[in-house]
Amino acid sequence: MGKVYIVGAGPGDPELLTLKALKAIKKADVILYDRLINPEILLHAKPGCELVYVGKEDGKHILEQDKINFLLYEFAKSNEIVVRLKGGDPFVFGRGGEEAIFLKEKGIPFEIVPGITSAISVPLYAGVPVTHRGVASSFVVVTGHGSKGQFPDINWKSLVGIDTVIFLMGIANRQKIAENLIKAGKSPETPVIFIEKGTTKEQKEIESTLEEVAQGKVKVHPPAIFLVGEVVRLRGKINWFEEALGEVRV
Amino acid sequence: MGKVYIVGAGPGDPELLTLKALKAIKKADVILYDRLINPEILLHAKPGCELVYVGKEDGKHILEQDKINFLLYEFAKSNEIVVRLKGGDPFVFGRGGEEAIFLKEKGIPFEIVPGITSAISVPLYAGVPVTHRGVASSFVVVTGHGSKGQFPDINWKSLVGIDTVIFLMGIANRQKIAENLIKAGKSPETPVIFIEKGTTKEQKEIESTLEEVAQGKVKVHPPAIFLVGEVVRLRGKINWFEEALGEVRV
Repeated sequence: MGKVYIVGAGPGDPELLTLKALKAIKKADVILYDRLINPEILLHAKPGCELVYVGKEDGKHILEQDKINFLLYEFAKSNEIVVRLKGGDPFVFGRGGEEAIFLKEKGIPFEIVPGITSAISVPLYAGVPVTHRGVASSFVVVTGHGSKGQFPDINWKSLVGIDTVIFLMGIANRQKIAENLIKAGKSPETPVIFIEKGTTKEQKEIESTLEEVAQGKVKVHPPAIFLVGEVVRLRGKINWFEEALGEVRV
Repeated sequence: MGKVYIVGAGPGDPELLTLKALKAIKKADVILYDRLINPEILLHAKPGCELVYVGKEDGKHILEQDKINFLLYEFAKSNEIVVRLKGGDPFVFGRGGEEAIFLKEKGIPFEIVPGITSAISVPLYAGVPVTHRGVASSFVVVTGHGSKGQFPDINWKSLVGIDTVIFLMGIANRQKIAENLIKAGKSPETPVIFIEKGTTKEQKEIESTLEEVAQGKVKVHPPAIFLVGEVVRLRGKINWFEEALGEVRV
């Protein structure tokens, strides 16, 4: 029986891979990879490594997860090193826990390699710190859509008392999310930022307010991070990646 | 004027460094590094690189921060590449934002390199996923001590409605934190875990309940993560690093 590495690939910038992840990818006989994995990362695979795309489509998560578990089992039976490569971090809405539990039940040895989560690093590339002395001493990360595609069941009152609120997979529901936050007591003037394709050369930022998002005024394209909080106002003082990109774009 | 890289070094395991961080470290002329940086990481520095320890002591943060800013400025004037190396991620209570703002004001070019944050990766190494379908669809990260060393001003009611609550720097205040969470409505039976020296060979886990922590029954030594939530119960089904360590220890 082979060994499975459940590996976080980071947010997009291929240099945000960890040394441990690179090591696992380099020795892999098979790599099962998700949607949103930067293809440059797959170039580290050794010649002859089998690359298997297992990207999930929205609304089909549960069925697909069973299929992925089955594939991990099948590949582990006939290969030495199997890498399960996921965007971001495997334990931040990556369902790495479910795969780990499945592997343990089947008696397949495994390791988990954390990844740079987009929840924190994508704002960082946009010049927005999730915490900042005197501005934000807490941040919360929430999924913006339910596991079966429905509107998520969120304790909105709780989010109001946290300084920085970060929604992953919340773009489609952004208007309803903003409405709920305002209804729960978050100020309509609270600044928000959407960051599309964060940490890549196509990164794009859209600054707005909760009120404008609730009014359906903001256009965003996935994949994007949706962040709400006063830390957005620091952006002009920190912004570094956009400037570096600007130099490249010219 | 040289360039400054504000770099996250990750939680402790030297293989959790990113490729981008490694690149910056390898070309650095000077590295200003914090307490808790794994010395193995500093071995990547080129011969002749100046290593400057700028670890802060508790209660002296503000004065020391000004001193670090001044040093960054001084070193950037006379060196090509200056690396400011921080444990974890620079924007998760790492005060990277303050350094970035200072550098921008001084006209010193800089880049920020995200790091694997201990808030997520240390629980992962203990077999605890911060999110898990059906168990936790939100997590919050909070500082467990104030910026001037006082007990932090936290909206406890808000934390009760978030599935997984992670305190960084909360060990000294753990009893009062647990009391406040229970008073705000978190069940006294909620499982908690403390993870000392996470991701290193000395990693140690202590499982308990909020009630026992509030009663002062739990002994912990810093540095440690303090996590509260039902996800702790998944540990027995996922736990992988402790087993791997066990094999090494034998």
